[in-house]
Amino acid sequence: KSFIEVHPDSHFSIQNLPYGVFKHEPDSQPRPGVAIGEYVLDLSVIALAGLFDGPYLRNSDCFNQPNLNTFLALGRPAWKEARTTLQKLLSAAEPILRDNASLREKAIVPMDKVQMLLPIAIGDYTDFFASKHHAKNCGLMFRGPENPINPNWFHIPIAYHGRASSVVISGTDIIRPRGQGHPTANSLPYFGSSRKLDFELEMAAVVGPGNELGKPVDVNEAADHIFGLVLMNDWSGDIQAWEYVPLGPFLGKSFGTTISPWIVTLDALEPFASDAPEQNPPPLPYLAEKESKNYDISLQVSVVPAGQKDASVVTRSNFKHLYWTITQQLAHHTINGCNLRPGDLLGTGTISGPESESYGCLLELTWNGQKPLSLGGTNRTFLEDGDEVVFTGCCKGDGYNVGFGKCSGKILPSPH
Amino acid sequence: KSFIEVHPDSHFSIQNLPYGVFKHEPDSQPRPGVAIGEYVLDLSVIALAGLFDGPYLRNSDCFNQPNLNTFLALGRPAWKEARTTLQKLLSAAEPILRDNASLREKAIVPMDKVQMLLPIAIGDYTDFFASKHHAKNCGLMFRGPENPINPNWFHIPIAYHGRASSVVISGTDIIRPRGQGHPTANSLPYFGSSRKLDFELEMAAVVGPGNELGKPVDVNEAADHIFGLVLMNDWSGDIQAWEYVPLGPFLGKSFGTTISPWIVTLDALEPFASDAPEQNPPPLPYLAEKESKNYDISLQVSVVPAGQKDASVVTRSNFKHLYWTITQQLAHHTINGCNLRPGDLLGTGTISGPESESYGCLLELTWNGQKPLSLGGTNRTFLEDGDEVVFTGCCKGDGYNVGFGKCSGKILPSPH
Ligand SMILES: [Ca+2]
Ligand SMILES: [Ca+2]
Ligand SMILES: [Mg+2]
Ligand SMILES: [Mg+2]
Ligand code: NI
Repeated sequence: KSFIEVHPDSHFSIQNLPYGVFKHEPDSQPRPGVAIGEYVLDLSVIALAGLFDGPYLRNSDCFNQPNLNTFLALGRPAWKEARTTLQKLLSAAEPILRDNASLREKAIVPMDKVQMLLPIAIGDYTDFFASKHHAKNCGLMFRGPENPINPNWFHIPIAYHGRASSVVISGTDIIRPRGQGHPTANSLPYFGSSRKLDFELEMAAVVGPGNELGKPVDVNEAADHIFGLVLMNDWSGDIQAWEYVPLGPFLGKSFGTTISPWIVTLDALEPFASDAPEQNPPPLPYLAEKESKNYDISLQVSVVPAGQKDASVVTRSNFKHLYWTITQQLAHHTINGCNLRPGDLLGTGTISGPESESYGCLLELTWNGQKPLSLGGTNRTFLEDGDEVVFTGCCKGDGYNVGFGKCSGKILPSPH
Repeated sequence: KSFIEVHPDSHFSIQNLPYGVFKHEPDSQPRPGVAIGEYVLDLSVIALAGLFDGPYLRNSDCFNQPNLNTFLALGRPAWKEARTTLQKLLSAAEPILRDNASLREKAIVPMDKVQMLLPIAIGDYTDFFASKHHAKNCGLMFRGPENPINPNWFHIPIAYHGRASSVVISGTDIIRPRGQGHPTANSLPYFGSSRKLDFELEMAAVVGPGNELGKPVDVNEAADHIFGLVLMNDWSGDIQAWEYVPLGPFLGKSFGTTISPWIVTLDALEPFASDAPEQNPPPLPYLAEKESKNYDISLQVSVVPAGQKDASVVTRSNFKHLYWTITQQLAHHTINGCNLRPGDLLGTGTISGPESESYGCLLELTWNGQKPLSLGGTNRTFLEDGDEVVFTGCCKGDGYNVGFGKCSGKILPSPH
């Protein structure tokens, strides 16, 4: 328990302590912090006060940086040291911070007084396609019922390189993309706004130390290369349909990808580990894990329709449904020698569950627009201008939560 | 003419002055320079001496950086000012540098004494598919003669997001990637080294100031967003064939991409501008340019087979063969609102010419291994361990060259 009051419904218990980067005032320097209840603990203040006194962090300037990349590069021993130090410092029994009013005032900032920023400088962003339910639904819609999932999917954690520059922080407006569409085989392509704009419910792993070019990461050591997870909305436009053969999605994705401000560490998620689904056919040896782990993270998507105030829940899914684990994803990514760097982002792909109420995008939920959703008295097939989409993710512990807060974005109309 | 002697065959005339980043000594700071004859002019020394005295560069620290990104962000007026300043400073008639022995000694370094580094921090790397001859040849091999080029190709400068982390500087060894292969439809995939390893003869545009998320760049202003060009070898492995449906190339590409150390500016290339091929069907209005420009850059690929000393030329192509111009590529990339940043890399895709001696990769040159090439007494279908591939690119002026130097890499065997 912390000396800072944490409401039982809060996502940010002392068991969680997720990392983010925030700004105090519009013109102040970005600095790393952890969330606790309705507060942010400023890690630059804690470091300056000399309270990170373990061997890994004592002489590090990693919390005096505008992003977490330096801390990520230090690896799991430093991450564990930070977690232990911070849990102790924030505990009800520990006087150092609790009883030092001037330090408390500098270090503990109300969350509603700060602006959250992108917590990492993202060198590369990769998006996987790791949910079997999602792969199957897409296949049923576009490949037909014979063989909905492409045969390579069962052997390879399929992925594509995404666009790093357009990854934005929760709360950033998303401008409806324009591009080429091609509604029927015999028409010419037209230019215009994306007509079917969608969210994709995903999470993403944040890469830690990374690896050198030419030196793959063993799948059984891959967890040490993952700092934590964020919520991610991989917004998608239907301009993708005409452009993506043969080289994959491009402009249908790169107009914006939203992540949550708080990175929840794998250490905080560990009590919520669950067995990953059995893989059949068995993966090739380089993807065979001694222990194959997911996490029981309840995910929920709400939409606030344009002009309304109230959100309607449109889907409830769970991270535990993923077929390919994040450690398999990471090991596969490096097996060709590709180097990962601290702060790289590995998206899971849309996380759909088995039931129709647990599908992870409107494409699936409305079956490509054939079954509109009713939202607070209005109907939706795809997103309309003014709609706001809110993701939340949370693990329920015994009397506490380990949650991700929210990941949201509102659709603005295309430019003329 | 410069007071520094430039051999008529040199790529680095005073009309060129390409930009790179170099290191003097193994432990010295990387710093920007321009190539002139067999020398590198150290721009940090020139800046420190106060010789960049125009309005854009006078108070800038852009040449006191470990890469060119700050300079790139300044845009064309600053680039023109730097070019004018440097051409004057290096001219035979100008005494400031010519007659200052101590400044000359600090500023002018023999090229064979320095190590060249990646000149830019690459935020994102995109690879296009802009050569019609290449698209047609790939289509003839894999789609058949009926309709070799996919219909979208004639409307869209097709591209995919590539991997920025594994872009390396010329001279870096390339380790043969491992991954999954799937030789026949009825077999199970195997794990192993890529069997068909190839080069792809490309060039890449280096992005200047870039654009904000949501604000596309007009095709007629796109040239102001391109600083210059480099040679690029987009190494490719056949592990791509089994992985790339439906999301495009991934591990078959991300094991390494090599660029030349010298960025030749569009200003230096301007005398070699040539009309781009006519586009039929005409492009949509957002891709219709007032002036549609390529450059007459002779490209050549040589291979030094493993264990041999001499290089054999395997293809001669030209940048002027591209169907989609680099300005169309850039405008298309941003039309959905995607933001480009200084230092982003836009690869052209394999630059194949119309004749079989001008194809840009071994896949085409050997027609997928069916017609081996004879190289100095040995045969090649694809690259073997120990082979070194060398690209060169050059524009021939009247008594001078504007060249790119070389872009090379040697294949090392896969790890066990
Ligand atoms: Ca996705
Ligand atoms: Ca390529
Ligand atoms: Mg996206
Ligand atoms: Mg490559
Ligand atoms: Ni990237």
